[in-house]
Amino acid sequence: MRNIKLVVEYDGTDYHGFAIQRRLRTVQGELERSIEAVVGAKTRIVGSGRTDAGAHAMGQVVSFRAETRLTPLELRRALNANLPDDIVVKEVQDVPEGFHARRSALRRHYRYSIWNAELPSVWIRRYRYHVVEQLDVEAMNQAAGFLVGTHDFACFTKGLGQYLASGSRRTTVRTIFKAAWTGNAPWVDFDVVGTAFLPHMIRNIVGCMLKIGTGKAAPEGFGKMLENGETPPYIWTVPAHGLMLVAVEY
Amino acid sequence: MRNIKLVVEYDGTDYHGFAIQRRLRTVQGELERSIEAVVGAKTRIVGSGRTDAGAHAMGQVVSFRAETRLTPLELRRALNANLPDDIVVKEVQDVPEGFHARRSALRRHYRYSIWNAELPSVWIRRYRYHVVEQLDVEAMNQAAGFLVGTHDFACFTKGLGQYLASGSRRTTVRTIFKAAWTGNAPWVDFDVVGTAFLPHMIRNIVGCMLKIGTGKAAPEGFGKMLENGETPPYIWTVPAHGLMLVAVEY
Repeated sequence: MRNIKLVVEYDGTDYHGFAIQRRLRTVQGELERSIEAVVGAKTRIVGSGRTDAGAHAMGQVVSFRAETRLTPLELRRALNANLPDDIVVKEVQDVPEGFHARRSALRRHYRYSIWNAELPSVWIRRYRYHVVEQLDVEAMNQAAGFLVGTHDFACFTKGLGQYLASGSRRTTVRTIFKAAWTGNAPWVDFDVVGTAFLPHMIRNIVGCMLKIGTGKAAPEGFGKMLENGETPPYIWTVPAHGLMLVAVEY
Repeated sequence: MRNIKLVVEYDGTDYHGFAIQRRLRTVQGELERSIEAVVGAKTRIVGSGRTDAGAHAMGQVVSFRAETRLTPLELRRALNANLPDDIVVKEVQDVPEGFHARRSALRRHYRYSIWNAELPSVWIRRYRYHVVEQLDVEAMNQAAGFLVGTHDFACFTKGLGQYLASGSRRTTVRTIFKAAWTGNAPWVDFDVVGTAFLPHMIRNIVGCMLKIGTGKAAPEGFGKMLENGETPPYIWTVPAHGLMLVAVEY
């Protein structure tokens, strides 16, 4: 039995997220369908993590076990031939027995992309969240600086009760290695690299930072609330379509 | 009665082209619907030219007559509020009585965009034609050079019989001011500026040039056939989704 790793790119617009759900179009569902078509056996895949409905990936990583004689390149070609055009398998690799796309992941890199302009743009409307008010990227960057390090991010997880009730006594402590806003209007991006992220955590953090970027809140207050584990009163969840899983490190 | 000019951007993927057609979703149909909603009267618009089903525009120009007290900026906001998110009105301007989006146009700039890579990419799949074979941009550029000047392009109009039979004794002579391939794999673009273009002319020319770029035909032969008014035997029509109306000059 081979253990196989894929790096996958997808436009999440027309999916109900990554994780498989009955009767709904999901990225996992499409991948498993194409793997079954190619290797001839029902196969369960593991992803590095879920992505929300409408969110995208340039570098989602999945792993699965299969018996096939196809080389990695042949496998890539066959999988892509069986996938819809909004999912592309970019890399196929044989990995050691112990590799597990979720448990072996060390760092995850996400990007939240904004189109900061008066007018929307048809080209990027699926991939960037349109913000009309001019953003103060410097202030947002100052707020981002407070995220780096190890913090309890419970205060940034909307639906946290649900998360905790879902049976897990998992910790809400996460380590952020990098958090930075870059670019100039209309192209403004937030890059964040961390061990892992809680549900809605990035979208809630970006929501707070947009309040800061439009002068409705101050970076210092944001830093203090994060330190004290308080939820900022101005928290909100930005739309999923600006969110992209860029890469996963192992 | 004001004479109003719009500059419009659209993602043509989900449209049956620019020109209005009964019961089909067209860009002109959506624009006329939004104008009617805003100015309160059925309004016929004129476009600088048609774009094919699936082709796009960054700078389509339309003109129409209307009575309204809205300023150009108010009009832009109101029109955009009434349009689907794959059409955006970028500019609204009052123009002199004699301005006509099609008849007053002096030059039209189109771009045909290619994704030249082994793997497809989900992000640009609506806007760039995927070519796997490595393209010789220099050879294509050499062929492009022969296009500049005034030529009879009858030989590049597929369905020409139909075009001539459609009642017009219009000339098939056109003047090309600029024709050039630029970029490096995976981003390769063909920019062409001319007085006007015949139906399918650009897509047929690009089809020929891709044969040249993949070594199946020679630039010199292409130049000779153009000179002699012969249709290259290797002519074909590339898909519409790589085609973009960039700008119209008046």
